[in-house]
Amino acid sequence: MALEIERKYRVANKEWKPLASAKKHIRQAYLADTEQISLRVRIKDATTATLTIKTATPGHTRQEFEYPIPLADAEELLQARTGSVVVKTRHIVPAGNLAWEIDVFEGENAGLVLAEIELEHADQPFEHPAWLGEEVTFDRRFYNSELARVPFSQWS
Amino acid sequence: MALEIERKYRVANKEWKPLASAKKHIRQAYLADTEQISLRVRIKDATTATLTIKTATPGHTRQEFEYPIPLADAEELLQARTGSVVVKTRHIVPAGNLAWEIDVFEGENAGLVLAEIELEHADQPFEHPAWLGEEVTFDRRFYNSELARVPFSQWS
Repeated sequence: MALEIERKYRVANKEWKPLASAKKHIRQAYLADTEQISLRVRIKDATTATLTIKTATPGHTRQEFEYPIPLADAEELLQARTGSVVVKTRHIVPAGNLAWEIDVFEGENAGLVLAEIELEHADQPFEHPAWLGEEVTFDRRFYNSELARVPFSQWS
Repeated sequence: MALEIERKYRVANKEWKPLASAKKHIRQAYLADTEQISLRVRIKDATTATLTIKTATPGHTRQEFEYPIPLADAEELLQARTGSVVVKTRHIVPAGNLAWEIDVFEGENAGLVLAEIELEHADQPFEHPAWLGEEVTFDRRFYNSELARVPFSQWS
């Protein structure tokens, strides 16, 4: 179990690209997305899979529980999804002791690029590189679960 | 992943009790229960815990995916449940190569006793012992997820 303290931004340009140290291809979908929990299946590089539960119990910090599952199970579970499969390539850009995760979306979310940083505590300082665009941490439209429901290509 | 072929019955009397070979105490709750999936957390004998996803994709056989999870995670996840925690003692009564699972419910479902048998294929023959009551396989009220939502003590 982990507490989530993340900040999320749009990406203003491609200056981050030469700084990326790694990447992986991600396909993920949601099996449930209620007021209390979301249940996500994620397949990385077509080789490993995880099941993730995020809870949002009123009055509690949002918690995240992640478990490895067999790849074959993940492919079966994707069939029971709500909404679309979200497809993206995640690039890692080191930032001191932290790291930016830069998601370049594909398919129905093509054109969208988001940068996320996970902090150890809410007031932890971090650098704001020049390629960072507007912050969207609290804009629900940019939640991956929302991008599965209303993809970027359908935004008006 | 497993396909589920189960038959479920009420229990007419206590004649099964001397035949029971094992028992365990179960606490379980549902984190989601949608038309497509249910997500269950189960704690057995306060020592082991599992996460179970049952899918019901239209046109597909109901599938079950079960994963062990840390006990501490399970206790946290129970906080994000919908409905009540279903509490019961499960007794095992051998039946040739098969086994009856007899659930004696407690708490809000006290008074309810159900017997389930899992078959390898739908037309597999099995003995119907004298203590077996009416079949309730297709009666949704007896689903554990429904017993979490509308406990037996609230039935009119």
